[in-house]
Amino acid sequence: MAELPIQFGILGCADIARKVSRAIILSPNSTLCAVGSRSLEKAAKFAKENGFPKSAKVYGSYEAVLDDPDVDAVYVPLPTSLHVKWAVLAAQKKKHLLLEKPVALNVKELDVILEAVESSEVQFMDSTMWMHNPRTAAMKEFLSNSELFGELKSVNSCFTFAAKQDFLENDIRVKPDLDALGALGDAGWYCIRSILWASNFELPKTVLALRDPVFNKAGVILACSASLYWEDGKIATFHCSFLANLTMDLTIVGTNGTLHLHDFVIPFEEKKASFSVATKSGFTELVTGWEPKPSEHQVTTDLPQEALMVKEFSRLVGSIKFDGSKPEIKWPTLSRKTQQVLDAVKLSIEKGFETVEV
Amino acid sequence: MAELPIQFGILGCADIARKVSRAIILSPNSTLCAVGSRSLEKAAKFAKENGFPKSAKVYGSYEAVLDDPDVDAVYVPLPTSLHVKWAVLAAQKKKHLLLEKPVALNVKELDVILEAVESSEVQFMDSTMWMHNPRTAAMKEFLSNSELFGELKSVNSCFTFAAKQDFLENDIRVKPDLDALGALGDAGWYCIRSILWASNFELPKTVLALRDPVFNKAGVILACSASLYWEDGKIATFHCSFLANLTMDLTIVGTNGTLHLHDFVIPFEEKKASFSVATKSGFTELVTGWEPKPSEHQVTTDLPQEALMVKEFSRLVGSIKFDGSKPEIKWPTLSRKTQQVLDAVKLSIEKGFETVEV
Repeated sequence: MAELPIQFGILGCADIARKVSRAIILSPNSTLCAVGSRSLEKAAKFAKENGFPKSAKVYGSYEAVLDDPDVDAVYVPLPTSLHVKWAVLAAQKKKHLLLEKPVALNVKELDVILEAVESSEVQFMDSTMWMHNPRTAAMKEFLSNSELFGELKSVNSCFTFAAKQDFLENDIRVKPDLDALGALGDAGWYCIRSILWASNFELPKTVLALRDPVFNKAGVILACSASLYWEDGKIATFHCSFLANLTMDLTIVGTNGTLHLHDFVIPFEEKKASFSVATKSGFTELVTGWEPKPSEHQVTTDLPQEALMVKEFSRLVGSIKFDGSKPEIKWPTLSRKTQQVLDAVKLSIEKGFETVEV
Repeated sequence: MAELPIQFGILGCADIARKVSRAIILSPNSTLCAVGSRSLEKAAKFAKENGFPKSAKVYGSYEAVLDDPDVDAVYVPLPTSLHVKWAVLAAQKKKHLLLEKPVALNVKELDVILEAVESSEVQFMDSTMWMHNPRTAAMKEFLSNSELFGELKSVNSCFTFAAKQDFLENDIRVKPDLDALGALGDAGWYCIRSILWASNFELPKTVLALRDPVFNKAGVILACSASLYWEDGKIATFHCSFLANLTMDLTIVGTNGTLHLHDFVIPFEEKKASFSVATKSGFTELVTGWEPKPSEHQVTTDLPQEALMVKEFSRLVGSIKFDGSKPEIKWPTLSRKTQQVLDAVKLSIEKGFETVEV
C-alpha cells in the first residue's frame, strides 16, 4: 500500500508559518491540508498566498483544524503563552505536534504538553530548524572525532538581531502576556540548544546569568547573557539580544580542535552552508603565522533545513501511522533539556544573578 | 643631519626575543646593538643565530646592556616578576623601553615602572604586536563608523592554545615565582586588550570572573573566563586557556554592524590579514537566507606586525632623541588600563567570583 503524505494543519497565520508552509510543500512526504485562524478571512488569505492546494481547508478557529479527521499533524506557531492550551488539545485530538520554540513558558508547562503527547502516543518535535541541516550532522562528525576535536572545553554562542521599532513595540515576542520569555525564549533558545548540542545534550550542572540584561517597560527581556558550567570543567557562554546587528555565532573549542560558524540558526544561503574547523593548530617556526591553518567545509542540500525538518517529522509520523511504530522520544527530550536550561537562566536573573542548579 | 637607526639592546634570550630580533632587523629605523644574558655563552649563541650584525655586542649580564651608551632602547622579554626591577633600572639608565606583556604582576608594580619612565622621559610601549597591524586600523575605521557599525553592544574574545606537557611543567608562564598570572597574564592580556580596544579604551565599570578557572598545583591559572560591564550596558566576555586548541577569536557586535576575526593576536599569514564585517544584516523575504551577507576584507602589509611595532616605537624614540619631542603617553596609558582590568579579574577570582569595581 502506498503511504500517503502526512497531512498538515496549521494553527494561526504567524509570519513564520509562511516559511513552514513552504517547507511542508517542499518536503516530499507532507502536504498542506488545513489552516485555522480566529478570522476565517485571514485563514483564507493565508492559504491563498502560501501555495495551499485547492483541496486544503480553511477554518475560522483553531479547534476546527484539530477536529478535522484528515489532519495528521499540526504545526503550532502560536504565541508561547498559548502553547500549553493548544498543544495539549492537539495531542488529545491525536494530532502529531510540530511546536514552535520556545516550546513553553517553563518546564512545568512543557511537562503538561509532554504528558498529553505521551498519553496520546503522538510525535512531538520542536521547530528548531538548524538541527536538521546536513551541516549539523557534518559538524557533529567533526566534534565526535577524538583525534580531530578531542574533549570539549568551551562553547560561545551569540544570536542577536536588530529589531525594528515596530517589532519592539508590537511583536508578540516583547509582550509579557504572549511571549514572556522575550529574547531569551526567542534568540536565547537557539543559543542554549546549540550549547547543549555541542555538549551531546549533557546538561550543565549550574547556570549563572550575567548581569545587566535589558528589559522593556513591561519587564520582558530584550537582551541577556549567561554562563553554563559542567562538572568536568566545561564552560559555555551565550549572548542573545533584540538590540544588536544580526549575528549568529557558534564557537566550539576542544583540546585538539576548534569549530566556527557565523550563521548557525539560518545559513547565509539555502542550498549550501559552511563551517570552519581547525585541528592541532600551531604556529610557524618564529610564531609569525599559523600552521596548519583552519579549513572551510561546505555542505550542500537539495532541501532547505526547514523542509528537512518537516521531512524528518513526517517520516516519524508516517512510521507511527503506517507501521505502528512508537513516537521518537529523542525530540521531546531535547526540547525539555533546552527548556530546563532556559528556565535556569531566567531564575538566575530573577534571583539577582545567583548561581542556579539545573 | 641623517637620523641614525635606533640601537636596540635585548635583555635575555627568551624564545619570543628571536621573533622581536627579526622585527628589529626588518624595521627600517632600528638595528640590533646588544644582547645580554646571565650566560655570556648563551648571549653569543643568541646573537649568532638571530642575525645580529658583527658590530653587535654580547654581554654576560643584563646590567651591561643597560650600561652600554650605544644602546638607545631595550626590549625586555624577561619573566613578569622581573619586570619591575629591570624596567625601572632601564628607565633610570635612560633607555627607552619596549616591555613584553603582561607588563607587570599588578598595577602597583606597573606604576613603579611608569614613574621611572616618566621621570626619565623615556618612551614606554608594551609588546602587543597586533595593535600595530594595519588590519587593526582598518577594523577601527569600521567600528568608528556610526552608520556601518553603530553603537558597541557586546564583545567576545577568546585566546586559547594547547600547551604541550613540557610547557605545562617547565614554561615560565606556569611558574608562580616567574609569571604568576599564568594564562590570564599571557593569553588573557590579549583578550582584555582587544576588548578595551573595541570599546575605545573606555574602562568597564565592573568585572566579574566566571567560575571554575583551572589552576595548576602551584596555583597558577591555566584557564579562566570573565565578564566585563560598562555603565551604558555594553558587555564583554572572554576566555583564555593553555588547555584547548589554538583559537584567537574576536567578535564585536554593534547596533548596526558586526565584526569577526579568528586570528586577532597573530594573523594566519604574515603579509596579509583579513576580517569579516556585516552591516544592517537582515534576511531574505521568507527568512531562508541573509541579505546582505557579511563581507571579507583583506589588508596587506609589507612588514609583519611585530616589525611595524618596532618601527613605531623607534619612530617615537627617534622623535625624542633627535627632535626633542616628549614621550607619547598613549602607550603607557593603554598598558595601564589593560593591567587594571587584568588585576580586577584576578581579584574577582581571589574573592570567590565577586563583582569587582575597576
